[in-house]
Amino acid sequence: MALSGSRPERLPVWFMRQAGRSLPEYRKARQGVAMLDACLTPELAAELTCQPVWRHGVDAAVFFSDIMVPLALAGVDVTIEPGIGPVIAHPVRSADDVAALASRRITDGSAITAAVRMAVAELDVPIIGFAGAPFTLAAYLVEGRGSRDHLAARSFMHAEPAAWDCLLTWCARISGEFLRLQAAGGAAAVQLFDSWAGVLSLQDYMAHAAPYSRLALQAVDVPRIHFGTGTGHLLEAMFECGCQALSIDYRTPLNEAARRVPGAVLQGNIDPAFLAAGWSALEAHTRDVVARGRNAPAHIVGLGHGVPPQTDPAVLTDLVSLIHEL
Amino acid sequence: MALSGSRPERLPVWFMRQAGRSLPEYRKARQGVAMLDACLTPELAAELTCQPVWRHGVDAAVFFSDIMVPLALAGVDVTIEPGIGPVIAHPVRSADDVAALASRRITDGSAITAAVRMAVAELDVPIIGFAGAPFTLAAYLVEGRGSRDHLAARSFMHAEPAAWDCLLTWCARISGEFLRLQAAGGAAAVQLFDSWAGVLSLQDYMAHAAPYSRLALQAVDVPRIHFGTGTGHLLEAMFECGCQALSIDYRTPLNEAARRVPGAVLQGNIDPAFLAAGWSALEAHTRDVVARGRNAPAHIVGLGHGVPPQTDPAVLTDLVSLIHEL
Repeated sequence: MALSGSRPERLPVWFMRQAGRSLPEYRKARQGVAMLDACLTPELAAELTCQPVWRHGVDAAVFFSDIMVPLALAGVDVTIEPGIGPVIAHPVRSADDVAALASRRITDGSAITAAVRMAVAELDVPIIGFAGAPFTLAAYLVEGRGSRDHLAARSFMHAEPAAWDCLLTWCARISGEFLRLQAAGGAAAVQLFDSWAGVLSLQDYMAHAAPYSRLALQAVDVPRIHFGTGTGHLLEAMFECGCQALSIDYRTPLNEAARRVPGAVLQGNIDPAFLAAGWSALEAHTRDVVARGRNAPAHIVGLGHGVPPQTDPAVLTDLVSLIHEL
Repeated sequence: MALSGSRPERLPVWFMRQAGRSLPEYRKARQGVAMLDACLTPELAAELTCQPVWRHGVDAAVFFSDIMVPLALAGVDVTIEPGIGPVIAHPVRSADDVAALASRRITDGSAITAAVRMAVAELDVPIIGFAGAPFTLAAYLVEGRGSRDHLAARSFMHAEPAAWDCLLTWCARISGEFLRLQAAGGAAAVQLFDSWAGVLSLQDYMAHAAPYSRLALQAVDVPRIHFGTGTGHLLEAMFECGCQALSIDYRTPLNEAARRVPGAVLQGNIDPAFLAAGWSALEAHTRDVVARGRNAPAHIVGLGHGVPPQTDPAVLTDLVSLIHEL
């Protein structure tokens, strides 16, 4: 497997959000079911996990879930609203709010383990589990929803360092527990998603985010992938959190990433903007990405970010075939 | 003046969006007046330009306007909606849309020149004009509004390179004309805002954005500042567009920026998140930023981004005093 650092004969490929609104069978199965309910219904979560493998022939399934699931399992009042994303009913804005949160635990995560187990039984390819990184979870908890700059979260981080430490330690524990539940069900690898880490300077990332990501990643002993976007300035620090692979956003060319983090298996890097730019542009871009990726110990091909909902699924299937021929 | 590359005795400071919702006198003057109407009413635009100089004692006024103003002056149907930002009624999604746009010109920009002239007459400090960079304008025109990834704009860029060239050339012309109107009124310097350029890889920036920014900057011969956020990977390329100063987002430490673009006057760099983090954290951060800025030929102190609307104006006034003492 590529995550051990050796190159398989055929380039492996999978996509983030490969299960999702781009697939008609996904939209059908999800009809009338709220996101978090879908995540907590084992049969449905397992089916949605398998759908893109059946359709596209990708080399791994990504467990169908959401980074908000462990918060919901710990009793945080969170919903995922269409067109907005996660909304936290009571944002965490003070040391007291953090103290109230810190005693919460995941009391029953059996739906997660069961869903992974069902998908494993169904498929011949490995299942990849995932969790949100502590900084990204904390940014949602403080802001109450997604934001561009995460100003409230970052102000809180600087204004209340002790409460921040307590909050991030809690997030790391919850994230780690979510990863463990998936590994227990048979996930062959996990990915830690730090979607918002790119808003931090290297100095702030190392002081206020990385130690907690390390803690979350330590929770499991399966291979670990660390993911960020807009994190070109953080690659070395993210790799040092204890992982085998780094997911590289389309902004950093893979030959540059391979030079900067020479021990890392690299993942991703295809710019999702090319999915809607016509086949010849997509093919030329993919060939360039794959050629640059030859500089890494191994390259798991994929997108620099998730599959956009409006993507034509036939383009993804063709892209998988192309990558398998390269 | 610092923009000539020599260090004035006292550190100069001004803030992006220093005129704005953080000031009660601004909220009062703007009451019931739509954003674009305010920008096109010379007396009001001049007053809003002066307000932060009167209150905070900053060393420059930023002309009160919006990067959408030149589009509106060229007849594009654009509004600025509270809580959303710019909304383009008819997004540009095809080569035909671009062709229809390309014949539009700013026929009467006299309100802009008049407003700058009034502010110049009122103040003892220089007025800084600005315009949106072609890529950022084009991203709004294609997306129809702000977005995180600008996928539609970037897909269009790759799918229709000839139409993209035509669109960006038009944006550069409109931006350049907007800068010229401000320089004609007496703006002592201008800033080109590429708010969204950070979503581009260096390769795409150099091929599909930088040449047009160069064109826009060439429109005036006053000193030029080039601004971006999340553009740590583009600093060298942005400096090469023909400017004297680079505005540096809080993510890149100034000593690192000074090493990478040794000829550039540097601007900004205070993280806006510290404005709400308490005085001692803000003071320590500001001293660190200023110390690192000593490595540059000159440093115009300011924020890495705009003043957040919820900022306590007293904190800004205190910050200006602190910087003047350093």
